[in-house]
Amino acid sequence: MGSLAALNSTCFTQCSPFKLKDQLNCSKQRAVCIRASAVSSPSLKSENYRIGVLGASGYTGSEIIRLVANHPNFEITLMTADRKAGQPIGSVFPHLATQKLPDLIAVKDADFSSVDAVFCCLPHGTTQEIIMSLPRDLKVVDLSADFRLQDISEYEEWYGQAHRAPDLQKEAVYGLTEIYRSEIQGAQLVANPGCYPTSVQLPLVPLMKANLIEVKNIIIDSKSGVSGAGRGAKEANLYTEIAEGINSYGVTRHRHVPEIEQGLSEAVGSKVTVGFTPHLMPMSRGMQSTIYVEMAPGVSTEDLYQHLKSFYENETFVVLLNKNEIPHTRHVRGSNLCLFNVFPDRLPGRAIIISVIDNLMKGASGQALQNLNLMMGIPEKTGLSSLPLFP
Amino acid sequence: MGSLAALNSTCFTQCSPFKLKDQLNCSKQRAVCIRASAVSSPSLKSENYRIGVLGASGYTGSEIIRLVANHPNFEITLMTADRKAGQPIGSVFPHLATQKLPDLIAVKDADFSSVDAVFCCLPHGTTQEIIMSLPRDLKVVDLSADFRLQDISEYEEWYGQAHRAPDLQKEAVYGLTEIYRSEIQGAQLVANPGCYPTSVQLPLVPLMKANLIEVKNIIIDSKSGVSGAGRGAKEANLYTEIAEGINSYGVTRHRHVPEIEQGLSEAVGSKVTVGFTPHLMPMSRGMQSTIYVEMAPGVSTEDLYQHLKSFYENETFVVLLNKNEIPHTRHVRGSNLCLFNVFPDRLPGRAIIISVIDNLMKGASGQALQNLNLMMGIPEKTGLSSLPLFP
Amino acid sequence: MGSLAALNSTCFTQCSPFKLKDQLNCSKQRAVCIRASAVSSPSLKSENYRIGVLGASGYTGSEIIRLVANHPNFEITLMTADRKAGQPIGSVFPHLATQKLPDLIAVKDADFSSVDAVFCCLPHGTTQEIIMSLPRDLKVVDLSADFRLQDISEYEEWYGQAHRAPDLQKEAVYGLTEIYRSEIQGAQLVANPGCYPTSVQLPLVPLMKANLIEVKNIIIDSKSGVSGAGRGAKEANLYTEIAEGINSYGVTRHRHVPEIEQGLSEAVGSKVTVGFTPHLMPMSRGMQSTIYVEMAPGVSTEDLYQHLKSFYENETFVVLLNKNEIPHTRHVRGSNLCLFNVFPDRLPGRAIIISVIDNLMKGASGQALQNLNLMMGIPEKTGLSSLPLFP
Amino acid sequence: MGSLAALNSTCFTQCSPFKLKDQLNCSKQRAVCIRASAVSSPSLKSENYRIGVLGASGYTGSEIIRLVANHPNFEITLMTADRKAGQPIGSVFPHLATQKLPDLIAVKDADFSSVDAVFCCLPHGTTQEIIMSLPRDLKVVDLSADFRLQDISEYEEWYGQAHRAPDLQKEAVYGLTEIYRSEIQGAQLVANPGCYPTSVQLPLVPLMKANLIEVKNIIIDSKSGVSGAGRGAKEANLYTEIAEGINSYGVTRHRHVPEIEQGLSEAVGSKVTVGFTPHLMPMSRGMQSTIYVEMAPGVSTEDLYQHLKSFYENETFVVLLNKNEIPHTRHVRGSNLCLFNVFPDRLPGRAIIISVIDNLMKGASGQALQNLNLMMGIPEKTGLSSLPLFP
Repeated sequence: MGSLAALNSTCFTQCSPFKLKDQLNCSKQRAVCIRASAVSSPSLKSENYRIGVLGASGYTGSEIIRLVANHPNFEITLMTADRKAGQPIGSVFPHLATQKLPDLIAVKDADFSSVDAVFCCLPHGTTQEIIMSLPRDLKVVDLSADFRLQDISEYEEWYGQAHRAPDLQKEAVYGLTEIYRSEIQGAQLVANPGCYPTSVQLPLVPLMKANLIEVKNIIIDSKSGVSGAGRGAKEANLYTEIAEGINSYGVTRHRHVPEIEQGLSEAVGSKVTVGFTPHLMPMSRGMQSTIYVEMAPGVSTEDLYQHLKSFYENETFVVLLNKNEIPHTRHVRGSNLCLFNVFPDRLPGRAIIISVIDNLMKGASGQALQNLNLMMGIPEKTGLSSLPLFP
Repeated sequence: MGSLAALNSTCFTQCSPFKLKDQLNCSKQRAVCIRASAVSSPSLKSENYRIGVLGASGYTGSEIIRLVANHPNFEITLMTADRKAGQPIGSVFPHLATQKLPDLIAVKDADFSSVDAVFCCLPHGTTQEIIMSLPRDLKVVDLSADFRLQDISEYEEWYGQAHRAPDLQKEAVYGLTEIYRSEIQGAQLVANPGCYPTSVQLPLVPLMKANLIEVKNIIIDSKSGVSGAGRGAKEANLYTEIAEGINSYGVTRHRHVPEIEQGLSEAVGSKVTVGFTPHLMPMSRGMQSTIYVEMAPGVSTEDLYQHLKSFYENETFVVLLNKNEIPHTRHVRGSNLCLFNVFPDRLPGRAIIISVIDNLMKGASGQALQNLNLMMGIPEKTGLSSLPLFP
Repeated sequence: MGSLAALNSTCFTQCSPFKLKDQLNCSKQRAVCIRASAVSSPSLKSENYRIGVLGASGYTGSEIIRLVANHPNFEITLMTADRKAGQPIGSVFPHLATQKLPDLIAVKDADFSSVDAVFCCLPHGTTQEIIMSLPRDLKVVDLSADFRLQDISEYEEWYGQAHRAPDLQKEAVYGLTEIYRSEIQGAQLVANPGCYPTSVQLPLVPLMKANLIEVKNIIIDSKSGVSGAGRGAKEANLYTEIAEGINSYGVTRHRHVPEIEQGLSEAVGSKVTVGFTPHLMPMSRGMQSTIYVEMAPGVSTEDLYQHLKSFYENETFVVLLNKNEIPHTRHVRGSNLCLFNVFPDRLPGRAIIISVIDNLMKGASGQALQNLNLMMGIPEKTGLSSLPLFP
Repeated sequence: MGSLAALNSTCFTQCSPFKLKDQLNCSKQRAVCIRASAVSSPSLKSENYRIGVLGASGYTGSEIIRLVANHPNFEITLMTADRKAGQPIGSVFPHLATQKLPDLIAVKDADFSSVDAVFCCLPHGTTQEIIMSLPRDLKVVDLSADFRLQDISEYEEWYGQAHRAPDLQKEAVYGLTEIYRSEIQGAQLVANPGCYPTSVQLPLVPLMKANLIEVKNIIIDSKSGVSGAGRGAKEANLYTEIAEGINSYGVTRHRHVPEIEQGLSEAVGSKVTVGFTPHLMPMSRGMQSTIYVEMAPGVSTEDLYQHLKSFYENETFVVLLNKNEIPHTRHVRGSNLCLFNVFPDRLPGRAIIISVIDNLMKGASGQALQNLNLMMGIPEKTGLSSLPLFP
């Protein structure tokens, strides 16, 4: 078995740092390794996992299904959608009709002993009770907001209801992958971050940890595609109401505020308050946060740039652009990338940080898959190698 | 003549303050007055004016033509477009094909003695020389940037070329109608404001004049539709490059910065520096400025609201919304409206001002027509009564 | 009174054939006439009419309100919307918030004695009963499908319910303005045509009346913007479900089929069956019908062109383009125009007719206003002079 | 070596018929096989191929690069773009910036001995000369129109210039994969089909071969996204000129007509003439052909459906939907799928066939990769397993 261990070790080290392009080659290499070791070790079979998707009739659910379809280790064997129970996925999402998948069932009818992990794509509120009822050995990535706020009084304040699973909350790991990677690897329940908080924290957390920017006067002007609002039939999200126009919404009162402040406060070790104004954009996918910050005394935008560069230099998905290059949401569409850059502000002592993601990918389902990969001990990028779809 | 004067006076006073709906009724009334007075006073005939459009093949030019088509006192008798000279307007803008209009000619072939006023929709740079060459008694509304900056050294700095008409610059009146109305009425040459500066100055100038907001840390995050980039064939503005995505551009270096700072500096009597980041939106028309300001000590958002309310209460086109209502660009599309509102920021002592316009209307051709109406002594709103086109 | 009659007659004849541009001048002229005659004839006051809009919370209702805002003779004094009763129009349609209008009320609370005419923008089915209950002297333009089909058995077949007002049906005049103008002038109840039928019949009816095209093998491939589906909150019409994609719908079973066939059958004097396939487009407004026809023996596309040219040469809104020019929906957006043209097909003996309208204007509210103008004896184009909004 | 051959044979047979989901599993299996055989057989190295992309600065070129990035056997080692020579791909297509790829060079500087195959994404006309100059052992998939028409007089008629490589034309195989699979496998030069012809021929060719539809009166109404027009900077393709509107173009004169007619004529053994009207849609990707056909006497739509069902039942990418399901372009976006269905027409004896593809994928680069896979002897679906991106 010694030689097999050596082989496996080679497999993994050869592939790092796993540029996107290398991933499939790595997969291939790893496949060999796996197969090779499989000869002598039945435990390798554990590399194939049965996955459940709770709430498969929404956009984050369908995005999980789309991604897992090309994942070599995961297979979806359970999908729930209470109001669509009994239907095939193709009747709910025709773009998935070519897939062989089980029919949708009601969550109450699900046999959770038959899956190894679940993505929970349910609305906040009900999520807590459902997750509480799951077998404890099930790995869970929860895409709702229900386990994101460590302080349950904050949850109650912003969501207007008591938290129903405070004990579970204590166990939950916040799934901002590049920041909490080691915690996520050992987690049983990951609270997958919101889209806005992901786009904001990825650039800001390293800068705040290093005390390069001030905690005061952080102004975040964010812009989101409409898919962030989900698939619910609301007049405000009709094509006719969205196309060819923009608007702010939830000014200062958006529920992602406490999540952003929690992450930044943890980074800097004291309570941070931010200004946050989200805007709705006439596009289905994509999110940009334009972040206006005050630098610490003596700090330059060059310092911010260099710090972010070294912080993220080994990351596949979080990419600091070359200087002066401006991130576009269209250059991340359909991918798990977060692109960002730093610019000097015309106002002395201030800088502008621009960060873009696909809200359904790094802002939701892509990051969720990245997290489950980590939790299952398989390479983080597996199933996430598609390049952005442009145009 | 006494009774006629009285009649005219009645006509005009009856119609004020000219709500949009009243305009056509007023037109009707006025038509009677005009006709009535015309009997005894041939000078009244001067209420019908011949208008030239220089640069009629771009979007601001076509928008002028669209508006003037329903203007009872203006008639377009001259249109230039050097590269399209000889063509009917319908071959350049098929949506205008139903109009009886002269063919496009080269500007060098134009007989300016045959018109009473011109809209100049030419690119910056060449504009100065052309306007210098016009008969001095011609009323001119210039939609380019060429006469907007009073300090010609600023022009040189931002536009990279010497100003060629410094004497004319001294005469030029900045055409932000609601702020400089009386100056515009007597002007011979009006420099029509840029779209971004219009959206920013309309809410900020009154607040700064009243010292309600600080001059420091003004952060402006603006979002514009693509028509602001004009009709030039550029790869970056192709449908495929714009649809379903957003991006910042010209970060801190956009040429509208000095114009905004000039207006705010004049309001407050000292040099103001702003942070300004424009964003390109996947929509043809519309502009929003989300403006983050610091209030003066002791000032509340309620103070800002009340001041703006009283400042603009008699205006037709500049409208402060009811409290908490959020302006949408789609609610001004095709109209000359500027809608805005004031919101408390989560950051103590700061406020958020959101302002929306149609960049081709109040941000360009609509305001240009409003200005020429004033310069010609006819009611400011004439020809601008169309409501927004929604959806 | 003789001289006043002469004056009035001058007024009206001078302005015909009322090109779009001339309309406001005509209004002005007419205003003089009206005023002049008003001195001696109080009955002239009847030129100002109080208008009700039933179902003002949908897109056809809001479009009526938008248009009437600039109509010199009509004023909206009553608006119903059962589920929004008690609200101001600005809370339902913020783009109309600048208008002084009565609040929305429930239809059961409406006092119909206070209005001179109503636009009925209610869903089919309930429309019949409401219209039956209205005072008989009220002029009604019904935008629903309820009175369009002369044969009530066809109504029952396609709408799945018995017709509840068969007597009223007999009185109803089909409101395809350019074809049934004289009938509409005398009508009490006009059934305003559907959008698809308008786009198809305007070019086809004259050709079929003249026996220039065969009744067989008429294939209509139509494309519509999403506003045709109304403002109801349906998943299928969300921005995310519509943007960047197209699809056919209701293949061969769309309810506009019997209306199209009725119009063509009447034109030719025998039963016509058509193939009709509608498609949903990622745009809010606009409709194109691409119509594939077989010409009668010996007939050429030139014959079709010349016949349409002479048939519509005095019309303002229905415009045959110059040869080879292709109609675009974007060139009619926001206007009451129908643009069309005729092309030879590659298949011998066949021709292609392309027709475009704004589905909310000539396809609904614009034509409705055109019809009510006729019914009220005022110039047909009043209030409809806005040029298309482009871009 | 016998056992290795057996192993390899197992690898390949186990994976067929390669459903989308199975592909990566197969890859994994195959990887094992490859590795296993690699030990004893250096020839296995030939499974990794060096690929050139000529004309990499256009949309079909960038789409090839996007796909090959996840292809386990292909690596791009050469990219040309004359006007962008010297630039990294990331400066031309920022969405590809995360890839390690050679810089763009001029085609004249390319060393074609260093590649095993090329995708030629150049404009028609110049393509012929460049392909003539390539080494004869290079496999070529040409995405231009230059080798699609077997009859070079047709080329001259529709493209207005003489064909410069008539000998090469004789060798070229038309790359409609599912129809000409065996010919493509042995081809040196494949003429990749146009997007419209792909969408039309895939459903029609089997039906015509089986004499189920008449050759006369085939009417094709096609709708395409804007990316089909390429990345050239043209006023007509600006966002402002395309958004929120539709139009026909090239009525009866589009250059894809002879290609469609060639394919159908070959299927039926006699000259077929079709009516073909393309339409431009406000979307970046996607294409629908709505095809109106006359069935042969006694044939029903059920017959058409069953024939298509059996013809394509083993295909991965060409999918007949369940009865009554309507294909949407949004359900194939970003994938290599062609979805279609058959509907009865209201006109007796006629049927409607609706077919959708992503014009850049099955309509261009996806099919090109599918073809090169075949030519290189590797599984046809390799690198094409991404599911559609929705929303």
